Amino acid sequence: MSERELLMIPGPTNVDPAVLRALSKTTTSHTSPEFVRIFRETLDNLKKVFMTNNEVFVISGSGTLALEMAVANIVEPGDKILNTVSGFFGNCFVEISKVHGAVPEVLEVPWGKSIKPELVRNALEADDYKAVTVTHVETSTGVANPIREIGEVVKKHSDAFYIVDTVCSLGGMEVRVDDWHIDACASGSQKCIGVPPGLALLSVSNAVLSLMETRKTPARFWYGGLGNWLPVMRDPSKYFATPPVNMVYAISEALKLILNEGLEKGFNRHHILAEAFRAAVDALNLKLVADRESAADTVTAAYYPDNIEDGAFRSKVKQNGIVVASTLGPLKGKGFRVGHMGNVNLNDIMSTVGAIETTLRYLGYGFDYGAGLKAAQEKVIC
Amino acid sequence: MSERELLMIPGPTNVDPAVLRALSKTTTSHTSPEFVRIFRETLDNLKKVFMTNNEVFVISGSGTLALEMAVANIVEPGDKILNTVSGFFGNCFVEISKVHGAVPEVLEVPWGKSIKPELVRNALEADDYKAVTVTHVETSTGVANPIREIGEVVKKHSDAFYIVDTVCSLGGMEVRVDDWHIDACASGSQKCIGVPPGLALLSVSNAVLSLMETRKTPARFWYGGLGNWLPVMRDPSKYFATPPVNMVYAISEALKLILNEGLEKGFNRHHILAEAFRAAVDALNLKLVADRESAADTVTAAYYPDNIEDGAFRSKVKQNGIVVASTLGPLKGKGFRVGHMGNVNLNDIMSTVGAIETTLRYLGYGFDYGAGLKAAQEKVIC
Repeated sequence: MSERELLMIPGPTNVDPAVLRALSKTTTSHTSPEFVRIFRETLDNLKKVFMTNNEVFVISGSGTLALEMAVANIVEPGDKILNTVSGFFGNCFVEISKVHGAVPEVLEVPWGKSIKPELVRNALEADDYKAVTVTHVETSTGVANPIREIGEVVKKHSDAFYIVDTVCSLGGMEVRVDDWHIDACASGSQKCIGVPPGLALLSVSNAVLSLMETRKTPARFWYGGLGNWLPVMRDPSKYFATPPVNMVYAISEALKLILNEGLEKGFNRHHILAEAFRAAVDALNLKLVADRESAADTVTAAYYPDNIEDGAFRSKVKQNGIVVASTLGPLKGKGFRVGHMGNVNLNDIMSTVGAIETTLRYLGYGFDYGAGLKAAQEKVIC
Repeated sequence: MSERELLMIPGPTNVDPAVLRALSKTTTSHTSPEFVRIFRETLDNLKKVFMTNNEVFVISGSGTLALEMAVANIVEPGDKILNTVSGFFGNCFVEISKVHGAVPEVLEVPWGKSIKPELVRNALEADDYKAVTVTHVETSTGVANPIREIGEVVKKHSDAFYIVDTVCSLGGMEVRVDDWHIDACASGSQKCIGVPPGLALLSVSNAVLSLMETRKTPARFWYGGLGNWLPVMRDPSKYFATPPVNMVYAISEALKLILNEGLEKGFNRHHILAEAFRAAVDALNLKLVADRESAADTVTAAYYPDNIEDGAFRSKVKQNGIVVASTLGPLKGKGFRVGHMGNVNLNDIMSTVGAIETTLRYLGYGFDYGAGLKAAQEKVIC
């Protein structure tokens, strides 16, 4: 393989060379004033990206760890939790809830559909829940769930804690933790943030922090215990477990890149590129997995036309220098997924559309060659 | 600060430039054949370092995560667990055991002392335990506990699972997982392995894996659930949560460095350098925290002489280009700790002893200037 291969999968994404250089800086003591300063600044910048004044946590682990931290620190055994499921990652919340002794009520919609706020409202009116979980962008389908509107419903119709998975959206699509009443917002480093995988990111409301004093039973989680990490996140010179020094260097640099571009400008870039990619998908007569009105700006899943085999398609696209992903679970083999998030730019989109066109023609699919590129180009006004 | 500062704390340790370069390689897909091959080779090499045929796990997280994985996957609520405690890190096992519903019996010795196998034997004869935990090298005191002899006692006098924390020894001191009957051996990347912090390392016996089928209740741990990760560790093309791609590159390179040197040769290097450093400590009339016969080859803690203040000492040593650590807990302010593990070499030891001598003289401590260096040098025969 060439290191110039474009990583157009829904995470990990292409990492900016400046972030890779930061990652490989000489490792320092986790208690040195230099590192403590960088860690503190990183936490401050992460608050800006979460758009929150809440406490934020940066922990060595994957996004899944952040999901588990959110649930484990909120639920107690026997607590009812409303898990909304619109794909593979929504279902993770169900499993995590069970492991921590909660009783899940699963509100499930078919893959490709989004969670309608009315469904959540109906569920909340029918029963009391300790927490509600929602996956913002369901990476398995490319659906963006309406977390703003669901947040309003949760706030208005319940006392439940609102837990949101923004692993596949934070930094690439609007996520307003404070304005949207998100009590625990879980994310990871390897998607829109543009850092290699290995950091769990979490913001937690004061209401959740207060739970630490009022819970009847302690959280069943030591490494992910908020009470263990809180002193460190408030003062990074404190110790609980050794923080991932070099990964913190990397996210420190990545957050600066994001804030230097400006959040709104970055969201707009993601939106235009997603629109361009979807226009290409349409022009090639491929069908989106996601309902169009729910399509995410960070990842697109599309069905293959008849007679196109997943392995042959992806390996040929890879030969053309682009890495795309398969679809998962019940959709395995039926489609492919393209991540267009993080450091993605227009060149990447055009390259990807070009490689997809080349491959589809090579594999015998009939379409207007070049139409995808033309349609994508027409979405770009600058 | 200069990036030429020597990191002589007990983790993170100085990372070899080749490992830092591997860390900053272009991020690839976690399911690419290239990455899968590297991950598989890494797991094979890690088995060599653990000296085991058992299954091994490399997970994004700190060493504390590995400790929690070991305990959480073995104990069930109500299980009695024997936690041996000889310092700060031994006590982590007690907290983790409680969080996972186990009932800890704490076998504690004063800081600086080691756990005598007879004490474990007495405890095992007095009661039945699901598991026994031991900290190999107690990073807070520089004591190495006799995990080989304790392993024999556990095997002979109980059916308990044997859980060992080798965060501060694996790769630097002899750890024979299979020969010493270790059911769960937990470690981390940032000490003797010589990788930045951010990887939890774990080996797990077949007896522990069998527990997954026979437990009455599931492990209270999703991100650290052995059953979730086992398919991935057996075939890294499988998915559970996104593995830390770049950190795996880094440990891949670091394990090669360790195996290229040869484990025995590496242990011997650690031993000679530890002997040299302890000889210097003696020559400067400083007192070891650890009982001499239990002193670890990876970290040394020593008490300050009268009238030497911790902050003044360590900041002056740092001005001289060497970073050393404070002592913890009840010993806070009373001494300092020097890590001599991982990529450490004789130059580092001499530099460190030199900086300590310079600093002690500067701070008014009276001793035979140069005696530490001379004593260290006398231990070196090559």
